[in-house]
Amino acid sequence: MRIAVLGTGMVGQVIASKLISLGHQVTMGAREAGNEKAVAWAGTHGAGAREGSFADAVAGAEMVINATSGAHSLEALEQAREGLAGKVLVDVANPLDFSGGFPPTFTVANTDSLGEQIQRAFPGARVVKALNTVNCDVMVEPSRVPGRHDTFVCGDDEAAKAEVTALLESFGWPADAVIDLGDISAARALEMYVALWLRLFTRFGTPAVSIAVVRGSE
Amino acid sequence: MRIAVLGTGMVGQVIASKLISLGHQVTMGAREAGNEKAVAWAGTHGAGAREGSFADAVAGAEMVINATSGAHSLEALEQAREGLAGKVLVDVANPLDFSGGFPPTFTVANTDSLGEQIQRAFPGARVVKALNTVNCDVMVEPSRVPGRHDTFVCGDDEAAKAEVTALLESFGWPADAVIDLGDISAARALEMYVALWLRLFTRFGTPAVSIAVVRGSE
Repeated sequence: MRIAVLGTGMVGQVIASKLISLGHQVTMGAREAGNEKAVAWAGTHGAGAREGSFADAVAGAEMVINATSGAHSLEALEQAREGLAGKVLVDVANPLDFSGGFPPTFTVANTDSLGEQIQRAFPGARVVKALNTVNCDVMVEPSRVPGRHDTFVCGDDEAAKAEVTALLESFGWPADAVIDLGDISAARALEMYVALWLRLFTRFGTPAVSIAVVRGSE
Repeated sequence: MRIAVLGTGMVGQVIASKLISLGHQVTMGAREAGNEKAVAWAGTHGAGAREGSFADAVAGAEMVINATSGAHSLEALEQAREGLAGKVLVDVANPLDFSGGFPPTFTVANTDSLGEQIQRAFPGARVVKALNTVNCDVMVEPSRVPGRHDTFVCGDDEAAKAEVTALLESFGWPADAVIDLGDISAARALEMYVALWLRLFTRFGTPAVSIAVVRGSE
């Protein structure tokens, strides 16, 4: 598949590299074509790896992954507005504000979420919130956390969620570990959970931390 | 131990009844002494069960459990201000606002939490946030959710957390399933997590749902 990965930070690099290893053609998108980190990445990941502006990356893509920093995602996606219509847009970003130190607070929470903001701003895009509850290395290699643990998707488009679930399975997530939480408003829950993730990261001193949902039958 | 359980709703009733079954003396506190639900509860739970105003309940207690509805907890605790100094105050409440329907939003979140508000308002109390991440039946009988799952405590007073951890163990939580997340500011994470719990409750159709923290060693 031709996939645009928006964002040149650690999350974008790790996801883009995994997609290349799975045989996809990947364009890493940045604010401007020729971004130093994107050029370096494309230059070391074979013929399927390219780089360009956010708009360039999205224009040629069948699927788009938002791996920009959450506080700037809306602005980044705005630069690619035209190409987003009709495409599956996987939002893995968290709207974190580190200006007050660690742990960060959220730029949006409680009564709204980044996932919802993106879906409202780009109504033609088929937004699926996914993978934001784990560190990027775990996103693409869930076995870094041993044993059973779960991941989540939500969004308004059922077919888009099925496509993203298939992508997650190709990353190594068992089908029954991908929990569909419903429409895009569940992004509030997935983003706010990250506050707990950050405390667990601090408590245990490892980013390889995740949760398993456990339930009774009553 | 003499324990005050503040709140006459389902959470208060379930916790108070469990404490009686463990041999504690429990006073259920309400806005006014003679509360119909508190009188009914006390009348059916033996000689160790009493009822009274919030202030009555706290005055004679060695430990206090806040099981009032989170949106009104500060107001309820204010009525018992004098008795709170020096006491362990277990805050199991969630600051939920159901005025917009289900799922509720939070009356406080992100940059503050109910747990922190309570600790600031009552600096002499030894506040421990605990148990708010599960349904009340699971709080006092964790085996309702099969297999390993975890619960959390946070607070500024280490000795108070140790006392609460012992209480949770008496409820059936294994010692290694009680995760200490640090100071009271972690109440933000524990309260915001409830947004995810509410979605899981909806998704799976059972309140017997919890999470296990899973981690690698890197």
